[in-house]
Amino acid sequence: MNEKMRVMTDRPLNAETPLESLRSWITDNDVFFKRNQGQIPQKPVSLSDWRLQVDGLVNLKLATTFEDLRRLPRAVVADTLECSGNSRSLLKKKASGNPWTVGGVGNAVWGGIWLRDLLEKAGLKADARHVSFEGFDQPLGSAGIKFIRSIPIEKAMSSTLLAYEMNGQPLPLEHGHPLRALALGWTGASCVKWLKRITVLDKPFEGFFMDRVYRVFQKGEDSKSGQVVTDIEIKSIIVEPADGQTLSIQTVPIRGAAYAGEEGIKKVDVSVDGGSTWHPADLVGPEQLYAWRHWEYRWKPPAAGDYTIMSRATDTKDQMQPMQANWNSLGYGNNGITEHAVTVHING
Amino acid sequence: MNEKMRVMTDRPLNAETPLESLRSWITDNDVFFKRNQGQIPQKPVSLSDWRLQVDGLVNLKLATTFEDLRRLPRAVVADTLECSGNSRSLLKKKASGNPWTVGGVGNAVWGGIWLRDLLEKAGLKADARHVSFEGFDQPLGSAGIKFIRSIPIEKAMSSTLLAYEMNGQPLPLEHGHPLRALALGWTGASCVKWLKRITVLDKPFEGFFMDRVYRVFQKGEDSKSGQVVTDIEIKSIIVEPADGQTLSIQTVPIRGAAYAGEEGIKKVDVSVDGGSTWHPADLVGPEQLYAWRHWEYRWKPPAAGDYTIMSRATDTKDQMQPMQANWNSLGYGNNGITEHAVTVHING
Repeated sequence: MNEKMRVMTDRPLNAETPLESLRSWITDNDVFFKRNQGQIPQKPVSLSDWRLQVDGLVNLKLATTFEDLRRLPRAVVADTLECSGNSRSLLKKKASGNPWTVGGVGNAVWGGIWLRDLLEKAGLKADARHVSFEGFDQPLGSAGIKFIRSIPIEKAMSSTLLAYEMNGQPLPLEHGHPLRALALGWTGASCVKWLKRITVLDKPFEGFFMDRVYRVFQKGEDSKSGQVVTDIEIKSIIVEPADGQTLSIQTVPIRGAAYAGEEGIKKVDVSVDGGSTWHPADLVGPEQLYAWRHWEYRWKPPAAGDYTIMSRATDTKDQMQPMQANWNSLGYGNNGITEHAVTVHING
Repeated sequence: MNEKMRVMTDRPLNAETPLESLRSWITDNDVFFKRNQGQIPQKPVSLSDWRLQVDGLVNLKLATTFEDLRRLPRAVVADTLECSGNSRSLLKKKASGNPWTVGGVGNAVWGGIWLRDLLEKAGLKADARHVSFEGFDQPLGSAGIKFIRSIPIEKAMSSTLLAYEMNGQPLPLEHGHPLRALALGWTGASCVKWLKRITVLDKPFEGFFMDRVYRVFQKGEDSKSGQVVTDIEIKSIIVEPADGQTLSIQTVPIRGAAYAGEEGIKKVDVSVDGGSTWHPADLVGPEQLYAWRHWEYRWKPPAAGDYTIMSRATDTKDQMQPMQANWNSLGYGNNGITEHAVTVHING
């Protein structure tokens, strides 16, 4: 575990990407956020022993070797992954769960195969509607509930990767070695690690991690009444200057990242007066669907004093980041605009 | 030093990226090829002590701090770096120099600033024509010649980065911490590491590493008669299968990378019959100017036997990789098509 990460819990392991690492377009594997429900395998599985089971509503059940996967058509995609509960601790009205600040996010270039190529090999039956993923992590806690999640067949057949490589390295143990699902543009909850089994179903998988959590619902409601968390909503974060920072009166680069799941980033605006007026930021660095876009606004403070800095992203569907996210019991999808209070003083 | 790298010499350190790491779009910093003329600094310079001198034909000499650089507009670019002498050992007629195979190449996403922003701050005089780079690596050998290189002012002002970040990490010591020049799309020879001084000149810098090496000349000619090595020429490499590999008779993914310096990759063709017929490969993964493009051709061998596999790239200016590179005394720019001899046998 890299010492720069902010560890929230160690059983299961939940730790944030440090703020300084969010400055980069590539998030280094070593500091890429870690969010787990179960116990990470103690050592990597032997690639020659490992098999990926494909079963359920298929014409041909598969027990695929790692070498079989490596022979399938190669897919390489930059994908920004965010924890469903990221920024939960920034909600004004508190919600249950790990107290993520903004570091439950990272961007990597992933190598692997398209899930559809594997499912086409197996052959889908007519009533195939959902695809569930199971890993070989062990449940933690007395309930002994496995982390199993499913996604709709349309997502599985269009834009879901099975990744065996992350930023030029074989997928590291803590990130799901040897294989993890990546529903591109969706939150980490659909991106099961340490895959061992993929099952085609006629409806969503039923179980604790589908029915009781990763759903958007209000206090007092039955969790199952809520919508399942899927794609990442339009959001931007300010990476520098830090909240509370004192600056000298010269040009200040205000920098951050913006991302919108399955959509691209059209623009980012910055306010230095608490949201009264907004100024377009420059978009910086690689532009790739599913990957975040970095941005910069070069601010010239007119005078010493206290300022409130905000950023606001707009996606290619003209959806704009809201001032406040829709609150829900488990605090998922907090994409509300955040405020950095900074003080500018005369340089001396 | 990562144990997977093939070390050619250790004083100075020259080592290749391992073949398996060339499968990925991102080349991990730890295995990214290393090519040096001098002695790598033993430990990182203190960022608070470090200054970047900018002098020569400028209106205002600068001694820039690292914090000054961080405040300049941020630039983030994917750039494939290749050693001028890469693939030298594959030339049929031998040439002098380190015996690189195909691993003197790698791709990273670099973060930093545009050199032009710094030069504009200094202000160019009317006779500014070249820009030289000097690092704080120590010369090796009794001659005590510093590795100093210059590039034309047009390249410096259009597409040259000063990078302080590599694949999401602060620039590692072995890759030039805290700052290296990156003439985008040009070979490593113009991309000086451990920068301490940038000088604006009215002509190319004169010295051993400009006049005697990194020039394309024939035996018996004076080295200065040759052209200075600048941009990377159109090339493709086969990463898998390996040369000499034995394969079973099933679909074989033939995979590799293609790159063309300042140009994009238009297409890659593959031959499995020693160059008689060619088949278009699929281009795979991110497309970014200055970065390589990965490709794949799914070959179905018609029968058991011996085959010669080749790949041939074409760039966006319709320049095609040649069967043989133009030979020169120091074996620079070997972009000739390589042959992989593979044997296919009946499975079973």
